[in-house]
Amino acid sequence: MSKTLIIGASGQIGKLTTKLLLERQHPVVALVRDKSKLDDLNSDYLTIVEQDLENDFSDALHGCDHIIFAAGSGGNTGADKTLLIDLWAATKAINYAKEHAAKHFTMVSSIGADDPDAIQSDLKPYLVAKHMADRHLINSGLNYTIVRPGSLTNESASKLISTERPKDRDKAIISRENVAHVLFTIATEQGSNRCIFEVFDGDKPIKAAIK
Amino acid sequence: MSKTLIIGASGQIGKLTTKLLLERQHPVVALVRDKSKLDDLNSDYLTIVEQDLENDFSDALHGCDHIIFAAGSGGNTGADKTLLIDLWAATKAINYAKEHAAKHFTMVSSIGADDPDAIQSDLKPYLVAKHMADRHLINSGLNYTIVRPGSLTNESASKLISTERPKDRDKAIISRENVAHVLFTIATEQGSNRCIFEVFDGDKPIKAAIK
Repeated sequence: MSKTLIIGASGQIGKLTTKLLLERQHPVVALVRDKSKLDDLNSDYLTIVEQDLENDFSDALHGCDHIIFAAGSGGNTGADKTLLIDLWAATKAINYAKEHAAKHFTMVSSIGADDPDAIQSDLKPYLVAKHMADRHLINSGLNYTIVRPGSLTNESASKLISTERPKDRDKAIISRENVAHVLFTIATEQGSNRCIFEVFDGDKPIKAAIK
Repeated sequence: MSKTLIIGASGQIGKLTTKLLLERQHPVVALVRDKSKLDDLNSDYLTIVEQDLENDFSDALHGCDHIIFAAGSGGNTGADKTLLIDLWAATKAINYAKEHAAKHFTMVSSIGADDPDAIQSDLKPYLVAKHMADRHLINSGLNYTIVRPGSLTNESASKLISTERPKDRDKAIISRENVAHVLFTIATEQGSNRCIFEVFDGDKPIKAAIK
């Protein structure tokens, strides 16, 4: 069975996705800086690799078919970390995936990363980093999916989403659990390639929405 | 005669390069955020365009054959500005140059931008931004030259340089005036294409060194 590497597996979305895959007995390599953050996960299908994304983490990709980059912490870290993690660690992960001939790379991006100039906000430096990481993936030659969630919430998974941006900005939201279900679907279906889409809470089952 | 746009013409290297070109009656469009910083320049060959690089500055490229990106302030600004200027404004300038079918784009990059992982220093986020901007230029399809100066000094121009990195790190320096002479030579000779080189104070005349 294919093996999935989750980069940033102790982040909220990363961990939720890890749990979903393990529940379905899907082998996961969880890359984290601090493995104690996964102490509550217990599965024969789980391999934990402890490594700082600011260092060389290429060994973690060994034997992994599918790579999910779910690291980063939104727009709230300092911009130096935005450069070092959201942009540079993502760029390195893409380069490593090419070296390891990974079959598919899924990037957790952000609404707005397609056009950082569209908004003037404190989030713009973050969106620039995400835009350039996405662009690096697009140019990499890898099979890829780029998922751009709306504003994240902690609601429970409805498993119903939309890939069309709501006109009302306040409704451009999605629960982290729904994002995890989207990532799970991409990792296990592996049908998508060269896909870029935004995701929001909506009214369509995930498979149908992202087809 | 070909016209050169200098992005960041009020910066130290940008202004020195502007002066050299004007002295030789070479038409220059100087793009600056605050035109009062060029009050001491007086030439029929000078056009000043006042625009913030965080906004749309594509109009400045109109009619310019050669673009020099000399904006940014080294590693000493906040990382948010590193993302918005050193990376994003550079990326936009490259995109605009393609839209305007500019003949040549010269990027003032930095030693270390080829491999941001080679050093662990506070400069790394800046080098990541420069690396990604350089990479965007390389992938753009434009004719380009990427100049990567060593540590900058305020010495007078010796007009003697080297493109080979000195083994002694303390000697990996170059005066801003020498960098300006290098940029002047690239803009007026226009023979180079798809060239990437580091520059240091050295012992070779500029034309011979960068040939």
